[in-house]
Amino acid sequence: MTDFGLSDPYAGQVNAVLSAYSDLQIISITHHVPPHNVALGAHILDASLDLFPNGSVFLAVVDPGVGTDRRGLIIRRSGRWLVGPDNGLLTTPDQEVEAWEIDQPKTLRPTIQATFHARDIFASVAGRLASYARPEWLGTSITNPMQIKRTPAHVEEGIAHGQVLHVDNFGNLITSIPASLARSASSIKTELDGLTIEGLSETYGTGAKFVALIGSWNLLEVARPGGSAATELGVGVGTPITATLINP
Amino acid sequence: MTDFGLSDPYAGQVNAVLSAYSDLQIISITHHVPPHNVALGAHILDASLDLFPNGSVFLAVVDPGVGTDRRGLIIRRSGRWLVGPDNGLLTTPDQEVEAWEIDQPKTLRPTIQATFHARDIFASVAGRLASYARPEWLGTSITNPMQIKRTPAHVEEGIAHGQVLHVDNFGNLITSIPASLARSASSIKTELDGLTIEGLSETYGTGAKFVALIGSWNLLEVARPGGSAATELGVGVGTPITATLINP
Amino acid sequence: MTDFGLSDPYAGQVNAVLSAYSDLQIISITHHVPPHNVALGAHILDASLDLFPNGSVFLAVVDPGVGTDRRGLIIRRSGRWLVGPDNGLLTTPDQEVEAWEIDQPKTLRPTIQATFHARDIFASVAGRLASYARPEWLGTSITNPMQIKRTPAHVEEGIAHGQVLHVDNFGNLITSIPASLARSASSIKTELDGLTIEGLSETYGTGAKFVALIGSWNLLEVARPGGSAATELGVGVGTPITATLINP
Repeated sequence: MTDFGLSDPYAGQVNAVLSAYSDLQIISITHHVPPHNVALGAHILDASLDLFPNGSVFLAVVDPGVGTDRRGLIIRRSGRWLVGPDNGLLTTPDQEVEAWEIDQPKTLRPTIQATFHARDIFASVAGRLASYARPEWLGTSITNPMQIKRTPAHVEEGIAHGQVLHVDNFGNLITSIPASLARSASSIKTELDGLTIEGLSETYGTGAKFVALIGSWNLLEVARPGGSAATELGVGVGTPITATLINP
Repeated sequence: MTDFGLSDPYAGQVNAVLSAYSDLQIISITHHVPPHNVALGAHILDASLDLFPNGSVFLAVVDPGVGTDRRGLIIRRSGRWLVGPDNGLLTTPDQEVEAWEIDQPKTLRPTIQATFHARDIFASVAGRLASYARPEWLGTSITNPMQIKRTPAHVEEGIAHGQVLHVDNFGNLITSIPASLARSASSIKTELDGLTIEGLSETYGTGAKFVALIGSWNLLEVARPGGSAATELGVGVGTPITATLINP
Repeated sequence: MTDFGLSDPYAGQVNAVLSAYSDLQIISITHHVPPHNVALGAHILDASLDLFPNGSVFLAVVDPGVGTDRRGLIIRRSGRWLVGPDNGLLTTPDQEVEAWEIDQPKTLRPTIQATFHARDIFASVAGRLASYARPEWLGTSITNPMQIKRTPAHVEEGIAHGQVLHVDNFGNLITSIPASLARSASSIKTELDGLTIEGLSETYGTGAKFVALIGSWNLLEVARPGGSAATELGVGVGTPITATLINP
């Protein structure tokens, strides 16, 4: 997973290095994380990790400061390996992880370009982990990997305040209100931009004009069945949203 | 093949589930079917099926009503397997198929989200078929899979009437007039938006300003050699087109 | 690598043919070369070839004249195989290559469409090479594959004159001034559109407003740390750039 996009050869070049490690199956989660949006990338990893087989290796790079002196990390989390920058992308606030700083230059590509750590450092490390190298061979155990608060939602007097984090390919509005919060009440009332939605829907396909639901991001979403909520409401990333938690 | 796009993690998450079935080679036909355009998706499958080895399994989802109570299907067609929604995407008007309704929940992912059948139902079924499961283990034989009339072209007094279905990456206009129709006459005269093209060209590269030809969609196309027909003519999806079938 | 994009099934259909050759690992460098831009495609191959393992086979198509009578080629270069059109895409001005014209129709797909050589000719040839076929079985040795001058940069009185070739996903400006030229002096002064940058930076992440650096294209780039140089300067492909080569 990266923010490299697919218009440039960057993602392909990272995969080129991985292809030297035999018998790897390479799957792209997405290379279209909005450039430099570490928090959204972290959300995507959270929602994707457990779908892959135990032991999978994740190479993830969303990095505003590529080539600067932030550390490169190996993270062990939920039985999976993650490799990438130490900027909060690989960690999650709710979970203890094991971490190693990548500091064994002998295991890397002979020519390291400061501008392309994904290809020249992280791909070799990910390829080696997938070939059953042990993390101690590639780095040094650390206890302080960076964490970021990725979900800007807070609850005041029974109302969760969040915002639209992402508009997906179908125009669904993915918000920062986590599923756990939306499901903590017997019912919720969702409001954004003058629109009010009562309750949670199970699917994108009901007869209602707009629905609120928990989708595959494990976040509260607002959708327009058969259409684009973003287009019809004229809203986008950053729009504030509230969910009133209703308990009898 | 899906209409999920590549900006979200959805396609990657489907592939994540597939990756648990060992030794699969995963190939994307495209994830950029225009959202909810079942007919165009069906055309793409028609034009792609035979290019893959016999026995290949196709996971295809273009679905305006995802999570609603339309059935999930396994289709056997031309020696290939297709898995997806029962909305006409997987069938073709000209061909008998075998069909099974997916109804064996014990074979699916333990947690099924109503919003994501591609990942939670179809991917497991496709993975099992690719691992040589028999369709009877995964569903129940049915005889009435949904069909859609996907090519809105009709012939009146020797003139085929159709429309532009799709504009490709090169600006070529892919129309709804099937190759079989365009080739049924000794020659044809193609007309759209005031432009007249005599005959069929063999390639995109001739000296003519605009050409009509049969491309890899098995549909009549209008192209501008070395340029974009869509841009230069200022036309797009939905533009009417006629082909006069000329027989001596 | 192609200019097919991912919105159409074309790249997937080429991979479908490749998938018939067992045990290939298929990696996309990019399918988003700007349509018909052979020179940019050639640059991408130059920068990508050595990242793949020795013996890798590259199927590359960027082809303004697809289906016309330009030849199809197999090229051997740096221990890798390249398959594609004879239009300069596969060769490099600085390197001797071995070349074969593809002319053994018995080795191709039975139905060849003049409009889709990538699928019907080049994919079969690439698949066979990857399965250890010898080039003499697929074509005839030639000595005159087409070459193009791909880097429109020239030096006059110690000043290299070039232009912006490409704007990448991060808004970095990839120019036609090669790394070898930019590094031939003790220092350089880069100028475009009224902006002057002194020296070369090692990373995208320094404190300067704009930086000049050598990135993974092996070409001089202009970047805006943490932002988009293209957007902030309002420049794009074709903008002239100069680099003054400073020697004490």
